Amino acid sequence: MRLARYEFEGRVRIGVVEGDCVVHLSDRIERLNGDMAHLIEHWADLRSQAEKLRGRADCRTGDVAFLAPVERPGKIWGIGLNYRDHIEESGSPVPEEQTWFVMANTTVAGPYQDIELPRVSKALDYEAELVFVVGKRIRYANAGDASDAIFGYCVGNDISVRDWQLRTGQFSIGKSFDTHAPYGPWIVTADEIDPLSLPIRSYVNDEVRQQSNTQHLLFTPAQQVEHLSKAMTLEPGDVFFTGTPGGVGGAMSPPQYLEVGDRVRVEIDGLGYIENTVAKG
Amino acid sequence: MRLARYEFEGRVRIGVVEGDCVVHLSDRIERLNGDMAHLIEHWADLRSQAEKLRGRADCRTGDVAFLAPVERPGKIWGIGLNYRDHIEESGSPVPEEQTWFVMANTTVAGPYQDIELPRVSKALDYEAELVFVVGKRIRYANAGDASDAIFGYCVGNDISVRDWQLRTGQFSIGKSFDTHAPYGPWIVTADEIDPLSLPIRSYVNDEVRQQSNTQHLLFTPAQQVEHLSKAMTLEPGDVFFTGTPGGVGGAMSPPQYLEVGDRVRVEIDGLGYIENTVAKG
Repeated sequence: MRLARYEFEGRVRIGVVEGDCVVHLSDRIERLNGDMAHLIEHWADLRSQAEKLRGRADCRTGDVAFLAPVERPGKIWGIGLNYRDHIEESGSPVPEEQTWFVMANTTVAGPYQDIELPRVSKALDYEAELVFVVGKRIRYANAGDASDAIFGYCVGNDISVRDWQLRTGQFSIGKSFDTHAPYGPWIVTADEIDPLSLPIRSYVNDEVRQQSNTQHLLFTPAQQVEHLSKAMTLEPGDVFFTGTPGGVGGAMSPPQYLEVGDRVRVEIDGLGYIENTVAKG
Repeated sequence: MRLARYEFEGRVRIGVVEGDCVVHLSDRIERLNGDMAHLIEHWADLRSQAEKLRGRADCRTGDVAFLAPVERPGKIWGIGLNYRDHIEESGSPVPEEQTWFVMANTTVAGPYQDIELPRVSKALDYEAELVFVVGKRIRYANAGDASDAIFGYCVGNDISVRDWQLRTGQFSIGKSFDTHAPYGPWIVTADEIDPLSLPIRSYVNDEVRQQSNTQHLLFTPAQQVEHLSKAMTLEPGDVFFTGTPGGVGGAMSPPQYLEVGDRVRVEIDGLGYIENTVAKG
């Protein structure tokens, strides 16, 4: 199922997308307003209600403004160095351990929202990424539990301010500028997708910049859940950015950073695409 | 004013602490249940109601169980390398730039709650820290705005799993284990405290480990707000850990890590103390 959060007729709602049809779940499912995390947390109970509403068409996808599926995730984790070609272009050795940073939750943006060129940097870069959303509260997950804890997948762009990311060695701040984690356009539930065979591409103004496949992920989403749950409790609505393939602007020679007016598009077959335009911050 | 969140007679409430007396604000202030972030966000409107209730005594501090003042902060930022003696013991050069990492919000713990010895590490360490809570939504703060955006101060312990913190270069994960950010016991509002002249100490089982003064902070709380707000919007209820002085266990020779049963106490004059016992994770 494709679950989206969007604005329609001035209100934020949750709904199901099928083809170019949208059916609203908000108001039809008890206590479901515009909060996707609520739907995810109670999915075991609410799924059958959502299934029964499928096939309706309250409006078309063109009539709604899609928003970030979870507006304010409890946590947003991003992994660095998770595709071999990106590891090579970064000049880093292949890591034996998963390299994680947290992003501030104010960095979330909608799938088609403008992203800001910071006032304090010109080193604005894109990173096409498979994103997943956690569906269950989980700690000390084994491999099977880890897979089951993944609710669904989205397309994401881990927009990075390279000088701020690299200046102190700690990535968090350079990954946490306002509007720098656009993702969406909806969540495709985990039962409908094999996360390890998805073509992924990014474009800047229609020029292909990244082109890979999630089969090249060094650490899989399930391994990511397993690893992080050794340290902490993962919760419904937590969002994970799973790493970017080679081809980022900062690794080009000379570096090609994003400028005001640039359109950046990330697409993943089976999940859809997001497209964001750079605007003055 | 000292604003606390606590459990009393089976319910979580917000209240004011004066001496050993507690007056409940929850139920007496409209729409205030147990959510400190709500009180902070609407403080300009609600402060006078809180002031009017002072002087009452609904119960004693000994009757309540104090909880983390903000249960799930939108963001938790921690700064590394912010006291000269800790910078020296870390073997790092004095940084010209503030070094920030984000912690997962599930790491929060109450001021007297047990903290866990991870199953996956024995390198458990303490870090006595002044903590502040943001009071206003702010971006691009100048120095004056930055000071005004600070709602109040607490005592914190930035519990760190040293091997996980240092293994990949990214600190976030080693700072994000469940229960590893105890803070409290209440928020002392900013009008009642000079954050730059506070004696700060930590003890492990009554042995002094850290002893310094916030006058030695390299980057002040206001400078921290100013810096981070260049990148992102800070929001009411965001929590900042402002760095630790020298004397952490990992820098002792040989390193003295925390073990099950150890009591760790952090105190800051004028703010109170927190004390946490290490338990098996």
